[in-house]
Amino acid sequence: MEEILKQALLYDFYGELLTGHQKRVYEDVVLNDYSFSEVAENLGISRQGVHDMIRRCNRLLTGYEEKLHLVERFISLRAQVGQIQKIAGEHRQDPAMKEIEGIAVSILEEL
Amino acid sequence: MEEILKQALLYDFYGELLTGHQKRVYEDVVLNDYSFSEVAENLGISRQGVHDMIRRCNRLLTGYEEKLHLVERFISLRAQVGQIQKIAGEHRQDPAMKEIEGIAVSILEEL
Repeated sequence: MEEILKQALLYDFYGELLTGHQKRVYEDVVLNDYSFSEVAENLGISRQGVHDMIRRCNRLLTGYEEKLHLVERFISLRAQVGQIQKIAGEHRQDPAMKEIEGIAVSILEEL
Repeated sequence: MEEILKQALLYDFYGELLTGHQKRVYEDVVLNDYSFSEVAENLGISRQGVHDMIRRCNRLLTGYEEKLHLVERFISLRAQVGQIQKIAGEHRQDPAMKEIEGIAVSILEEL
């Protein structure tokens, strides 16, 4: 998986376990694609400080994943529900299939 | 939901974030249904110590759920996939329905 997508997924699952300050820096750099220098200037900290914090956040988020495996389970689950949606969508003239397709779409929206 | 079931689900999702010692005590009391006195004696700590640790573990696990909402999402998801399984099972003479039923069963086993 692309590194940035993996980071975003890790953040999506475990971001709430970071402090407010860590979240702000992580979001600016990883999700909003600001440069280390821009974020450093905005927050009045050094460029190295931003760099260290991102590294620390990545270690924390990766550590949670190594323990809980939620992103891994989520990716597998999404693929399986996607498969149900595809099969049901190909037969949606059948009302029961249409109902299944609707549930699958609703699950995928929530995931 | 029954309190004991809720505790078991919380532990299932977030238990790996507890220390080894906390896990051992929590499993003995909550999952294996030993009494506080038995666990205290086995581990050579006071009954009050066991009591305090269970309370602390419950606070930690509940705190993770308040931040991450994984048990909540899991329960909703399981209900929706269960619904798909039910509908597909009622039409399993149709090969596509049989395939969907199989995927739903596999998801429920993994959840």
